[in-house]
Amino acid sequence: MHSVSKSWLLLTGFIVFYVIYLLFGALVFSCIERPVEDQLRHDMEALKQEFLNLSCVNAASLERFLVKVLTANKYGVSVLKNSSVTSNWDLISSMFFANTLVTTVGYGHTTPLSDSGKAFSILYALIGVPFTMLVLTACVQRLMYPLVFAPVGLLQRSGLEPRSATAVHFLLLLVLVVLCFFVAPAAVFSTVEMSWSFLDGIYFCFISLCTIGLGDFVPGTQPGQKYRPLYQVTVMFYLFVGLMMMYLLLRTFHKMADLHGLTTFLQLPRCEESDLDEDREPIVDNQDEDQTRPYLTEKAASKPLEPGSQTSYNSINKG
Amino acid sequence: MHSVSKSWLLLTGFIVFYVIYLLFGALVFSCIERPVEDQLRHDMEALKQEFLNLSCVNAASLERFLVKVLTANKYGVSVLKNSSVTSNWDLISSMFFANTLVTTVGYGHTTPLSDSGKAFSILYALIGVPFTMLVLTACVQRLMYPLVFAPVGLLQRSGLEPRSATAVHFLLLLVLVVLCFFVAPAAVFSTVEMSWSFLDGIYFCFISLCTIGLGDFVPGTQPGQKYRPLYQVTVMFYLFVGLMMMYLLLRTFHKMADLHGLTTFLQLPRCEESDLDEDREPIVDNQDEDQTRPYLTEKAASKPLEPGSQTSYNSINKG
Repeated sequence: MHSVSKSWLLLTGFIVFYVIYLLFGALVFSCIERPVEDQLRHDMEALKQEFLNLSCVNAASLERFLVKVLTANKYGVSVLKNSSVTSNWDLISSMFFANTLVTTVGYGHTTPLSDSGKAFSILYALIGVPFTMLVLTACVQRLMYPLVFAPVGLLQRSGLEPRSATAVHFLLLLVLVVLCFFVAPAAVFSTVEMSWSFLDGIYFCFISLCTIGLGDFVPGTQPGQKYRPLYQVTVMFYLFVGLMMMYLLLRTFHKMADLHGLTTFLQLPRCEESDLDEDREPIVDNQDEDQTRPYLTEKAASKPLEPGSQTSYNSINKG
Repeated sequence: MHSVSKSWLLLTGFIVFYVIYLLFGALVFSCIERPVEDQLRHDMEALKQEFLNLSCVNAASLERFLVKVLTANKYGVSVLKNSSVTSNWDLISSMFFANTLVTTVGYGHTTPLSDSGKAFSILYALIGVPFTMLVLTACVQRLMYPLVFAPVGLLQRSGLEPRSATAVHFLLLLVLVVLCFFVAPAAVFSTVEMSWSFLDGIYFCFISLCTIGLGDFVPGTQPGQKYRPLYQVTVMFYLFVGLMMMYLLLRTFHKMADLHGLTTFLQLPRCEESDLDEDREPIVDNQDEDQTRPYLTEKAASKPLEPGSQTSYNSINKG
């Protein structure tokens, strides 16, 4: 099969498997956690009713009541009237949880209640986290040409010196990412989520796309939101594409740092080799590879500056 | 200056600056958040007292009370009697929070209450996250020789075929990491934290070292714990070294995958180039570098198998 088709087929396979893996996780989490959550929710309602029926509310009874309320709340079960209708472990919410696990965002607004849920979380993330990194890496690799190499080539052809071209390109990409993945979503979130300000939106986007995921702001958790499942799926999509763009930005920065001699100065690994791989036909026969590699590397390094080519970042003379 | 001394000086500088950066973050967070927390804590106590003084507790008044209790709890302020003594924003706790921000673990057991706290979190993480990655990368690079290249060389000298040597080494490293950074700490945590089981300990270690950080289990947050500041500093140290080892494991796996042709098969970037950099004298003069690079790569690829050398991973013939 042609290597380009094979490469795209592999990527499509990755993405399909990623979605299936999320669905599988959602199903298992939902099956394990839903009954435990229902039981806890039921217990909390009974507890609340019991508390209301108390003839005399004293400090001790209130304390006992609050301990249980806060413990249940830690697991995402609220005693408030209007929050008891939505479950944290329906299929879409479970998928949202599975997604925050494998992307390592981990908001923690809902956490597994049962020991089997915790054990499954470990196993699920053990496979899911590296697999998600793999899918993200594969996607970013496919985006490097249209979003990095081609624009840098274009800037060079327009007369910019190579180093300046990469710096200008990085700045443009940064502005684009900030506008499309921070400012615009923050505006949307502050409109959709009643209690969020614009700063809250920016804060949520930043904390999420850095995979910090504090969980003080999580979209789609307020009661009575319309089209909640659709909204949650959109947020999951936003998170995935956003993480991809953050990774792309990081890789572009790494390449620019290489070119400006920053990685050499800080004695850190460079990321040039990967581009040679991108440029190269995939070699399944490993025997051939050792002979091919030095030749290709030498060729890339000695090649004259060719704007628009994929190796423009590497072949640029650093002087 | 000799390149090795320069390299270690740079690393020491990184680590010192990392600690200073954490301390600086802790100071700022503490200054911004402590007054807001004190105010909220004071308000909650008044609210609780007011609620207890109500002549008649009905569903509506309880609901109003609980809404405020749960909102305060989201920001880490509990209305429970025994938790009101410890602050989430004393210097050490703020440093713990700053540490979970820059390592992207982000438990979210405490989150900034004020808008200025949120804005500072964004700025702090914007510099802190890449810098932490830099420090971790620099540390891992220094550990590659004693923990990866040397043992693989030893295994080869003991008669193992190169590919098997890397596989055996990876398995040994994996077992070591699991024992030292999951099993042993989990045992410690389940002893120190009264309410944690061993599974909870393993779950905490895993969720933390994958930087998911759900925050349902956070050490040092239970009231009345002895030597809390020391304990929190120890956990911070554990997190840093643990993340370093996870990164080392990932890099070793990546190298092994390279050698076994997995990255070529999946068309992903290889990580071989970095070893050449490690082996090479740091070149600050960029002009020289372009001539040096192809030569070094060619030399490394055509060099005969030399056990114990740092490039053993790269120079191994894949056939």
